[in-house]
Amino acid sequence: MENRRPLILISNDDGVTAKGINELVRFLRPLGDIVVMAPDSPRSGSGCALTTTNPVRYQLVREEEGLTVYQCSGTPTDCVKLARNVALKRKPDLVVGGINHGDNSATNVHYSGTMGVVIEGCLNGIPSIGFSLCDHDNDADFEPAGPYIRKIAAMTLEKGLPPLTCLNVNFPNTPELKGVKVCEQAKGAWTREWEPCPRPGDPNCYWLTGVFSDSEPENEKNDHWALSHGYVAITPTTVDVTAYSFVDELKKRCLDL
Amino acid sequence: MENRRPLILISNDDGVTAKGINELVRFLRPLGDIVVMAPDSPRSGSGCALTTTNPVRYQLVREEEGLTVYQCSGTPTDCVKLARNVALKRKPDLVVGGINHGDNSATNVHYSGTMGVVIEGCLNGIPSIGFSLCDHDNDADFEPAGPYIRKIAAMTLEKGLPPLTCLNVNFPNTPELKGVKVCEQAKGAWTREWEPCPRPGDPNCYWLTGVFSDSEPENEKNDHWALSHGYVAITPTTVDVTAYSFVDELKKRCLDL
Repeated sequence: MENRRPLILISNDDGVTAKGINELVRFLRPLGDIVVMAPDSPRSGSGCALTTTNPVRYQLVREEEGLTVYQCSGTPTDCVKLARNVALKRKPDLVVGGINHGDNSATNVHYSGTMGVVIEGCLNGIPSIGFSLCDHDNDADFEPAGPYIRKIAAMTLEKGLPPLTCLNVNFPNTPELKGVKVCEQAKGAWTREWEPCPRPGDPNCYWLTGVFSDSEPENEKNDHWALSHGYVAITPTTVDVTAYSFVDELKKRCLDL
Repeated sequence: MENRRPLILISNDDGVTAKGINELVRFLRPLGDIVVMAPDSPRSGSGCALTTTNPVRYQLVREEEGLTVYQCSGTPTDCVKLARNVALKRKPDLVVGGINHGDNSATNVHYSGTMGVVIEGCLNGIPSIGFSLCDHDNDADFEPAGPYIRKIAAMTLEKGLPPLTCLNVNFPNTPELKGVKVCEQAKGAWTREWEPCPRPGDPNCYWLTGVFSDSEPENEKNDHWALSHGYVAITPTTVDVTAYSFVDELKKRCLDL
């Protein structure tokens, strides 16, 4: 006799006041009841980090029909864990991270707090999606992404996702989106990652920065390619990181141990 | 005309003074020149987190023949990035994380700062291994793990690892190790994760804790099973998290978008 609206848990890594998460709430409100549990300050690059050396706090920010907003002192992953196990009375039907101010395609998936939200939802057996826009601006324009976000979320609410599988969706920074491409994670590495900021008595001081070097820039299967050609990149992502293709060879090697 | 000793970069998430990392240095010194770049304080549960809101600093702690030790204000991932791109004069032949005080098998791979070290090495094309012992005690006994660690590291220096593939090696907390098992990542989820620590004016305050619930406790292929039966669990791990098996089905679903 299920007759209630879907429950959608939203978090991010840019913090509860970021434009991206508030636009996401606006886009998804027609689909269900929304609970936001998001960091009280920016937490970019959190990956799946947990808070282990301090207690974690949360508090109600706002409550209205179909929308409850909490802020939390912890990481994006803490936010999902705390919402799921403490603040929410039932299991969410969907966990959504974002909309991130910045690209989470390619190897960025490992560093992304937005994808930390999504991985945590997925590990808990909840269909989970991360949305990111390739624009770091505080006032980035999320409007072109809106219709896609609503459709991808509705499709996922309706059809679910396979076990251990979530979605990493990235939008290029263009008002003219060419449509959706299902992609593979681009391979490559960050280069030129440290900008010196020395001062007297503290010579070894650096800001993290960097340039992503794509190892296969012409590979049309990759999310990085799709983004640079104006497509919405949807990369299905697994939380089972076993390297199955290496198991047999490794077993042979380990006979010598 | 390569005639120098291998260069081994070591980091961890328990911090530069932890017993585990110092035991790891002792075990690996016969294999090459060692550089340690490790956090200046405990960073458990860092995952692949980066430091984005502050600059990152490092300083020399100790230098002797074949061993250089730095401490760093950043995360485990920052440590590898800073060593690789700033402190080291050449690319390491091996990156090693650990020895972690605590279990990094199963889904812990996502939260682990030790595996953050390893994933960063792997993303940079360097053979990389994480070692963890299922004992959180500050004075845990790493001695039984020593011979295995040295052999697994030597094997990896000699044979390398496939692209995008690293090793997650966990030791059960027993002096009587039954040998090595090549494993798959156990599936499951953490439960009972929050311990309330309310105080006046701050009712929604919690410490992270939890009990891991293995969804297939009798699956002999899994690392969690191997550990609970006294084996050293070696789980080959990939940094390509594309869910390839869902690509075709997702393409069909996306035709409706």
